[in-house]
Amino acid sequence: MHIVDIIAKKRDGIELSQSEIDWLIKSYTSDAIPDYQMAAWLMAVFFRGMSDTETAALTMAMAASGDMVDLSQVPGVKVDKHSTGGVGDTTTLVLAPTVAAAGVPVAKMSGRGLGFTGGTIDKLEAIPGFKVALECNEFIANLQRHNMAITGQTASVAPADGKLYSLRDVTATVESIPLIASSIMSKKIASGADKIILDVKVGNGAFMKSREDAIKLAETMVRIGQLVDRETVAILTSMEQPLGMAIGNSLEIKEAIEILQGRGEPLLKEVCLTIGSYMLTLGGKAQNYEDGRRQFTALLDTRQALAKFGEFIEAQGGDSSILQDTTKLPQAQFIQEVYSGRSGYVAAIKAAQIGYAAMRLGAGREYKGQTIDLSAGIVMQCRVGQAVQKGQALAVIYTNDKSKITEVDFLIRQAILFADKPVPSPPLILGIVDKYGFHR
Amino acid sequence: MHIVDIIAKKRDGIELSQSEIDWLIKSYTSDAIPDYQMAAWLMAVFFRGMSDTETAALTMAMAASGDMVDLSQVPGVKVDKHSTGGVGDTTTLVLAPTVAAAGVPVAKMSGRGLGFTGGTIDKLEAIPGFKVALECNEFIANLQRHNMAITGQTASVAPADGKLYSLRDVTATVESIPLIASSIMSKKIASGADKIILDVKVGNGAFMKSREDAIKLAETMVRIGQLVDRETVAILTSMEQPLGMAIGNSLEIKEAIEILQGRGEPLLKEVCLTIGSYMLTLGGKAQNYEDGRRQFTALLDTRQALAKFGEFIEAQGGDSSILQDTTKLPQAQFIQEVYSGRSGYVAAIKAAQIGYAAMRLGAGREYKGQTIDLSAGIVMQCRVGQAVQKGQALAVIYTNDKSKITEVDFLIRQAILFADKPVPSPPLILGIVDKYGFHR
Repeated sequence: MHIVDIIAKKRDGIELSQSEIDWLIKSYTSDAIPDYQMAAWLMAVFFRGMSDTETAALTMAMAASGDMVDLSQVPGVKVDKHSTGGVGDTTTLVLAPTVAAAGVPVAKMSGRGLGFTGGTIDKLEAIPGFKVALECNEFIANLQRHNMAITGQTASVAPADGKLYSLRDVTATVESIPLIASSIMSKKIASGADKIILDVKVGNGAFMKSREDAIKLAETMVRIGQLVDRETVAILTSMEQPLGMAIGNSLEIKEAIEILQGRGEPLLKEVCLTIGSYMLTLGGKAQNYEDGRRQFTALLDTRQALAKFGEFIEAQGGDSSILQDTTKLPQAQFIQEVYSGRSGYVAAIKAAQIGYAAMRLGAGREYKGQTIDLSAGIVMQCRVGQAVQKGQALAVIYTNDKSKITEVDFLIRQAILFADKPVPSPPLILGIVDKYGFHR
Repeated sequence: MHIVDIIAKKRDGIELSQSEIDWLIKSYTSDAIPDYQMAAWLMAVFFRGMSDTETAALTMAMAASGDMVDLSQVPGVKVDKHSTGGVGDTTTLVLAPTVAAAGVPVAKMSGRGLGFTGGTIDKLEAIPGFKVALECNEFIANLQRHNMAITGQTASVAPADGKLYSLRDVTATVESIPLIASSIMSKKIASGADKIILDVKVGNGAFMKSREDAIKLAETMVRIGQLVDRETVAILTSMEQPLGMAIGNSLEIKEAIEILQGRGEPLLKEVCLTIGSYMLTLGGKAQNYEDGRRQFTALLDTRQALAKFGEFIEAQGGDSSILQDTTKLPQAQFIQEVYSGRSGYVAAIKAAQIGYAAMRLGAGREYKGQTIDLSAGIVMQCRVGQAVQKGQALAVIYTNDKSKITEVDFLIRQAILFADKPVPSPPLILGIVDKYGFHR
């Protein structure tokens, strides 16, 4: 095979065969194809797109480019959940213990935060003693014993995806639905998922700004799942404001604990309930969505989910007494409220800008490998649609760097838009894409 | 400026400014932008195209990327001629001395052949003693003294074009009209041309297979010429069969001499007359096309053009007695006729395949830097439209490698298609593109 012919085929809109895509990804991973040829191919994909068969072939080729985690010795259907990334998205910390408590094994490889979005691994590191890097045998042993294990993603899982993503990032070829879809799905498949649930975020704080693009991405991933025999369901959720109230690692652990105690923030809780019900259904523990929802609520209310979270924390070396006393989590030195300069109705909260403000406090990373401040962050005090009085607190800043307060106060106030008349709350769950297509 | 932004702009169909294009080409030439980013940009250009302003800016940026030849000390309008490349295209060897004899200075930087097309520099090397590499001062001195000088193109002229062309070749981004147009025009402008005449070849033996694409390319180059103040005229000529009868370096020199003696092959001569008339008009020596044609014919018939060719050969160290005795040119050891296997009318001659056959004899290069056999080649004995009897000679093979004869005999016979009924001769001059647009 010749790489120039494969670039030209894609450029001219001719479908590539599975063996051509396999060869392309193998050759690129082994450095036999240089970056400049791959970059030309990626830009051709940007313009021409990929068929479902091509996208599925790309997904499997990337999944097979490194270690494939084998979870076959763990009984049960392994359901993996992935979020396309948002602000204040603490769902994994609620979903994982609840679903595990119901008997569905939760084996997760999670990432670190970058830019305005957080990462589950960073959040877990806020728990004193918690170990985020597990050896493969340790991971499987924990999973067998506790039905739940979370570890950091290693470079040996889908290395082709890592290499391709870095190239896309510097060649303006990130925004391509088949490339995004195959990137997400390849990692899930390489991590051993039998079934996949996707939380596709839509709105100003998400990668997908429009509902149409989000549906397209969701449909592509669901179809890849069908073609590679991993049943996949995608939930479209709104990111027109931060999902939870807390943005920042310690703060989000605390918010997750509140929900696991059966209390907590209603929007975040609703998203957890929706996704969790599908996870229980896909995992074969619930008969349908309603049954799943009922079971999920019961696991929270009876504190079985909270107990599972404690068990999981202990199993990975963490101090589970934080569940009783959240002041044992890293605490920021300075706490400062952000006051509203006017009265009115909250019309919009730019989630990405709130995420950026939290990053400026040290809660997130501007570049890979940067050290973060686990105690820093923001807790929102308002929601879109809410009436606010002048001088009322819009948010609370948590920081160890007093010099950042002025800038972050400004950023938060800039991110909140007001209207004079009442504003309806935006819809939270925008729809579901499953094997039957898109529906509400 | 950020390269990712520039790639994204082009990707999204937003026009780039002159300063963005300047920066891009400067940065790429100095290795500040890596190949993979340039490759993504080139593929985006393939899909989005470039406006005339962008193409002109790219042309000037590439021309300015290295040495700009300054011919201002040479009086007269410097008219440069460029062919997009064909088979049996000996026009430069006829045009240059004839136009120079008329008083229009001919300062040419020419290339070597690659693949199925030949190069003027290779052909001139067939003349015993001829020196194809001139120092800059020597080049200008010869030009002032003899009104004519031809030298090999150096890497210091439009190096950005050389670097970009190599990248396009391996990233399936060669076939883009603005990229082809700016590549050609940048080299002509950097070599000091005041006005430019382009021979755009169309047909099975040319890079542009269709008349529509050829017109588009010609129009693009003429508009670039207008924008950068170098009047440009493009002649569209047919490459549905080899232009001259001879393909191969010594053989083509011999054919050129025949035309300079007022004799020679009518099709090749007609293309020379057409292009030459425009060169004389652009150079200010003829009042119009008809006047140019009359003058050009007279220069051939009175052998003034032949005398100028001899003067030029001597000035560059060559032996001009070849004009009287062409057996002094390198001669092949074996001469073998190719016989027709059937009677009929010649319906088509695949020029590229004839060029390829000549290359197999050693007349051309399969890869850059390959040594060639200056004596080897093919002389055609038939034309499209001609009636041929079974057993009649279709072509003559000249070679020093007897073992190649069987293969080349087969290739030539494969390249000639027959019809049972008379076939009209294809039109030779397909049209002109000048400041008034396309016309016949």
